[in-house]
Amino acid sequence: FMAFIIRIRGFFLKAWKLGVDDPRKFVHGIKAGMALTLVSLFYYMRPLYDGVGGNAMWAVMTVVVVFENTVGATIYKSLNRVFATSLAGFLALGVHWVASQSGRRFEPVISCLAVFLLASAATFSRFIPTIKAKFDYGCLIFILTFSMVSVSGYRVEQLFDVANQRMATIIIGTSLVIIVTMFICPIWAGQELHALIIRNMDKIANSLDGSMDLYFGQKEEETGPDKQLGNKSLGYRCVLGSKASEESFANFARWEPAHGQFSFKHPWKQYLKVGAALRSCAYCIEALNGCINSENQAPDAVKKHLKEACERVSSTCSSITRELAKTIQTTTRSPTVDFLTKEMNVAVQELHNSLKSLPDALKEESESESESESADCDAKSARVVPLMEVIPAATFASLLIEISSRVDSVV
Amino acid sequence: FMAFIIRIRGFFLKAWKLGVDDPRKFVHGIKAGMALTLVSLFYYMRPLYDGVGGNAMWAVMTVVVVFENTVGATIYKSLNRVFATSLAGFLALGVHWVASQSGRRFEPVISCLAVFLLASAATFSRFIPTIKAKFDYGCLIFILTFSMVSVSGYRVEQLFDVANQRMATIIIGTSLVIIVTMFICPIWAGQELHALIIRNMDKIANSLDGSMDLYFGQKEEETGPDKQLGNKSLGYRCVLGSKASEESFANFARWEPAHGQFSFKHPWKQYLKVGAALRSCAYCIEALNGCINSENQAPDAVKKHLKEACERVSSTCSSITRELAKTIQTTTRSPTVDFLTKEMNVAVQELHNSLKSLPDALKEESESESESESADCDAKSARVVPLMEVIPAATFASLLIEISSRVDSVV
Repeated sequence: FMAFIIRIRGFFLKAWKLGVDDPRKFVHGIKAGMALTLVSLFYYMRPLYDGVGGNAMWAVMTVVVVFENTVGATIYKSLNRVFATSLAGFLALGVHWVASQSGRRFEPVISCLAVFLLASAATFSRFIPTIKAKFDYGCLIFILTFSMVSVSGYRVEQLFDVANQRMATIIIGTSLVIIVTMFICPIWAGQELHALIIRNMDKIANSLDGSMDLYFGQKEEETGPDKQLGNKSLGYRCVLGSKASEESFANFARWEPAHGQFSFKHPWKQYLKVGAALRSCAYCIEALNGCINSENQAPDAVKKHLKEACERVSSTCSSITRELAKTIQTTTRSPTVDFLTKEMNVAVQELHNSLKSLPDALKEESESESESESADCDAKSARVVPLMEVIPAATFASLLIEISSRVDSVV
Repeated sequence: FMAFIIRIRGFFLKAWKLGVDDPRKFVHGIKAGMALTLVSLFYYMRPLYDGVGGNAMWAVMTVVVVFENTVGATIYKSLNRVFATSLAGFLALGVHWVASQSGRRFEPVISCLAVFLLASAATFSRFIPTIKAKFDYGCLIFILTFSMVSVSGYRVEQLFDVANQRMATIIIGTSLVIIVTMFICPIWAGQELHALIIRNMDKIANSLDGSMDLYFGQKEEETGPDKQLGNKSLGYRCVLGSKASEESFANFARWEPAHGQFSFKHPWKQYLKVGAALRSCAYCIEALNGCINSENQAPDAVKKHLKEACERVSSTCSSITRELAKTIQTTTRSPTVDFLTKEMNVAVQELHNSLKSLPDALKEESESESESESADCDAKSARVVPLMEVIPAATFASLLIEISSRVDSVV
């Protein structure tokens, strides 16, 4: 029993830590509670209650279902809900009218057939990518409303009244939710995307630096800061898996009104491209890390020979990435990027040169060493590192520069 | 106007192609329509209608909301819905009782406070990873039911009756949906996961072969089959992005009853590990492709020297992967895997040897060639390929072997 209590306590501690790490999660919970309480208050106020009838329940439901973390997602769901409900309502009324004209006998047959056909079509349409991206929730609501109306239409005669009231409650619910999400500590999907990309850039830069330090400083200090470096250099893992969240943010960001430094038609798609470029860079760092952790390491002599040039390349790379992050953050064009790019190209050239001179340097070494063969073989894994990095880094940098200039031109 | 019609037509053609490519999507749509029609029929039958009262609408709603593509997802949603509804209902009744005991004055205050607190807590708890994975939908339904009951509790006196009817309708809806999804062309999440992993393995093997052909055969035939090979070798891209779907399948597969060759407690988590190993292999192929597309290529002489050994390594790798795919497909231990692994290790050793002999071979070449320096420099990018591949391939293969033995031991 004690073990159970300890587990529960651990769970609560974890939850508390989650909230403290990101207080906006607490705020989000409180916002949801507030929106619901406000809607319930509507219900307790006699005059309003009499106005919308017993359907106030629908307002509660709308609030619960529509309330989302980011403003974009909330607006997306609200608009989808309102439009899908009205469309389905009208269609269902039409079908109901046709059915009622065709006599008592065929009425249920026609209704059932309509439900079957439209539900099948709408469910299938949710598989189509373009619809899935923009109207997935709307399709669901469409099916829901249509089948509910056409089923209840058989019983309730005052369909128009019901539809009227339901629309009113849904609009009350959605507008309340939108007001709450937009004006009380709003979390904009666009801003999140923006911050995510910048954070990813910083992570890439850090893990590039970290893996360089790890690779070349491996033998000097193996105890203390090594683990920290390891953690730092693993930041790229987050970048690998961030595709889905980037896409959903970009998807929701399109629904958001202008806010802060972001105008309408902010180039959200460019962010996706930058994200993809970052991810391809993260793949390279993954490969780099494979070299770091591999069993056959290059001898120190080779490392020493290449150390300076490699470090220059990686430091210019990471400072370019950091500079680009700053560029995106302030959405202004920075002249430092061009300068740094030139510097990086010089560094790459230098690395090429030192690679060319490596065989000569090695030859001197190998004459003094006994195991020249194995040293030569292992040396290749050292050479793997710079080349693996140089090629994508160069393409990556040029890609980023192109994109940053595009971002600048649009903002 | 004609352009509009053409676009609509194109859209429908695309949708139709989607369905033809995967007929199960059509079937799914039809199943959804059928389930809804069946529920509507309940509504049209007088005696049943009188039994559950005007709440039959709730059955319709349940069907629409709970119906999902895979059996696992449907069961997950159904169970979550039923339990969350009952829990929230009981809690709401308790709160309602406390509120009604405390007098007319405090009743709305207490109700509102309870809604606020519980809704906030439940919304926040959706951020906690373990809850999000298993009970995300349940939390939503909990908030929904609780706030609806406590709000309507103020008006309706016969709460117990309402709760009873609502539970009945929800259970009718969920059981109907579960029957339809399970017995009419069921799509099991577990099977999907199984197939996805196998497909990914084949894709990895194909793209390994494809990129080898592309790298070593680049200059011989540049026109016809090259593009096809390029497409083939890009199969690994799908593997890179399949993490999210693997996780959701594994998540849903846990809810599924025993079916086909899969018993209860099938090792779904092992699939995730295999998937992760495949993904790390895909990262390496990404790096390989970077080498293929890079500007500085190795001279033909170097390529020729390494061609045989490289091709042996990659072909053993890909045949191991195919063999493993077969192993997983039949869930039996195949002795061929061990044999192939040994063969691969031999091939890797051979590649090491030919790498060691490369400098000598090169030296002969360089004496006859004029541009020995640049040839030596470019040679490194050729060396990049085999080493980049050998290290992860070896670790990958050993990982896979370990996992496949685990899979075998559990099944």
